[in-house]
Amino acid sequence: MDNIYNNNSFFEQYAQMSRSKDGLAGAGEWHQLKPLFPPLSGKNVLDLGCGYGWHCKYAAEQGAESVLGLDLSEKMIKEAKARNADSKITYRVCGLQEYEYPAESWDFVVSNLVLHYIADLDAVYRRVYRTLKPGGVFLFNIEHPVFTAGVNQDWIYESTAGEYAADAIGKIADEISGEKADKTGGHVRKPLYWPVDNYYMPGERNTHFLGCDVKKQHHTLTQILMGLLNNGFTIEAVTEAEPPQEMLDIPGMRDELRRPMMLLVKVRKQTV
Amino acid sequence: MDNIYNNNSFFEQYAQMSRSKDGLAGAGEWHQLKPLFPPLSGKNVLDLGCGYGWHCKYAAEQGAESVLGLDLSEKMIKEAKARNADSKITYRVCGLQEYEYPAESWDFVVSNLVLHYIADLDAVYRRVYRTLKPGGVFLFNIEHPVFTAGVNQDWIYESTAGEYAADAIGKIADEISGEKADKTGGHVRKPLYWPVDNYYMPGERNTHFLGCDVKKQHHTLTQILMGLLNNGFTIEAVTEAEPPQEMLDIPGMRDELRRPMMLLVKVRKQTV
Repeated sequence: MDNIYNNNSFFEQYAQMSRSKDGLAGAGEWHQLKPLFPPLSGKNVLDLGCGYGWHCKYAAEQGAESVLGLDLSEKMIKEAKARNADSKITYRVCGLQEYEYPAESWDFVVSNLVLHYIADLDAVYRRVYRTLKPGGVFLFNIEHPVFTAGVNQDWIYESTAGEYAADAIGKIADEISGEKADKTGGHVRKPLYWPVDNYYMPGERNTHFLGCDVKKQHHTLTQILMGLLNNGFTIEAVTEAEPPQEMLDIPGMRDELRRPMMLLVKVRKQTV
Repeated sequence: MDNIYNNNSFFEQYAQMSRSKDGLAGAGEWHQLKPLFPPLSGKNVLDLGCGYGWHCKYAAEQGAESVLGLDLSEKMIKEAKARNADSKITYRVCGLQEYEYPAESWDFVVSNLVLHYIADLDAVYRRVYRTLKPGGVFLFNIEHPVFTAGVNQDWIYESTAGEYAADAIGKIADEISGEKADKTGGHVRKPLYWPVDNYYMPGERNTHFLGCDVKKQHHTLTQILMGLLNNGFTIEAVTEAEPPQEMLDIPGMRDELRRPMMLLVKVRKQTV
């Protein structure tokens, strides 16, 4: 995983997102993720990619006995310690692929918006399965395959379509280029649709996020779900994040109803 | 369900599809659907939307004790009786929503490419759950949400992008309309990407398939999977249909790697 979250510019932009400023209440998926949490009273909780530590803090508030928040980014861990410190919580700079995953040690493993940076999802599943106690729950939120298979992970806008047309109509395009929609400047570009391509070619996707080039990993739905089943997990919930009614007036939020961005998955290691 | 399969023109076109002419071997998803069938020796099998009866015949060949194939289309049932008759198989003209679903009567229920015509998926799940014996399996293949949420359920082609651009650049477009890519005629149109829109607005989609206007129903992945879990099923497989290597040289088949078209789901009614 490229540690983009240690990049200064990216980190500053990230700090401006509503999920950073307002925590769980600022995250559009929280109203769906929250009810998927199991009861945490007296439980041991592991957070893979804890970021600012909002979910760790929530777990502690729910009565968790101990919480370990891991993040590859030093900046994130520093922020988590400043914002969401708690006597029950330990924060540690550590990547998902470096953690030791001791056998049958955790009641609950949570991972929010991290797994789409991991190429080998199956290796994470295998380790999480091992580190969970029997009956333990793994809950994660991953970028949706429709999102990660999006061309440049962006909409096609009216002007983008214009650019494609420019290619198609050749010389004529040069003559009219002064009129191209993307050169009008200052206009709000209207998303036409969400373009999906190369769905069955999982792997690295170069995207632009918060002003930086960011590498993500596309996984098919088959990989995401069959990987869990093949590792012995039982699926308890598969839910696509949909913005709540009260957020729909935030600019751009209605477009979130046009294509899925996040996939919430809850699975359990069976008691034998 | 509009019974498009009783429409003469549609039916004739359908007869020309390789899945109609060549049966299971001509269906791109069969290599993935087949291994999801449970052992059928001595079992009772219900096929919801049996079409030409290929899956009924396969079940009989696998040793099923009895097979009931239902289809809303008289033409399909006539064809099934002609092509795939077997002493173990009963074919009946009956819609999925009209069938009585007697309690705990079937070991295996299969449904191939029919559920995307059904608005109330949950009602079907509830009835299938009831009609399965404990331990029974429900296996279905439904059009993938990425496919049913596709704008007009078609690619955006170079020329389509040109049309959008024509809107965007206004008057200039009129001047160059003689040059528009979609008027060049005879050229093979290159798919640019698969456009997704209105994903979270399930319901009717008007599409064009085999030369006819066909109404389908878009369901989100959440509806498809949570509906099963909420009705008590255990998920055993979720697999996206991907054309096999040996079919990739069929014209257009490589584009099937660019977006998912079908979702194969296997679930079980638990023994209590």
